[in-house]
Amino acid sequence: MIKIVAKMYVRPECVDAFKSQAKELVEKSAAEAGNVSYSLNQSRSEPGVLAFIEFWKDQDAIDTHNASEHFTRILPILGGMCSKAPEIELFDEV
Amino acid sequence: MIKIVAKMYVRPECVDAFKSQAKELVEKSAAEAGNVSYSLNQSRSEPGVLAFIEFWKDQDAIDTHNASEHFTRILPILGGMCSKAPEIELFDEV
Repeated sequence: MIKIVAKMYVRPECVDAFKSQAKELVEKSAAEAGNVSYSLNQSRSEPGVLAFIEFWKDQDAIDTHNASEHFTRILPILGGMCSKAPEIELFDEV
Repeated sequence: MIKIVAKMYVRPECVDAFKSQAKELVEKSAAEAGNVSYSLNQSRSEPGVLAFIEFWKDQDAIDTHNASEHFTRILPILGGMCSKAPEIELFDEV
């Protein structure tokens, strides 16, 4: 399984709107055949850090997700609410 | 739900031993009543970074885990294989 932790640095005035806009992305991504778990999470120490924590069956599942209508449409909207580029880390489950 | 991403910076010569020692911790933590998901994961960009990705029902579940025999016994062994302190982030699912 491949895990992704994608940390987004959201401007303080945009946190509520970010959460709202992300709902559709979370629901549609979690419904993809290759997805195991997909959620949005808020850092306790830095409330402006919103992290997508994603579990995928394999690389094909990630490629399909990255090309999906919901991802390519909603991610730029979320990116527009951020103060800097996201930090994206990929992990292989041991 | 509360999520923890705990990144451990493992010395190169200890990565295999770390994975081996962590197995019991993963199995026993995943079997705790308050755990939803518990796994060890290896960074693709930095293979010396081993991350525990943990989903817990609530704070009581984390407190019970932190006091458990397997956690208090095995974590110091794993810490001894690291080159610096871990980075531990807590998140609340949105």
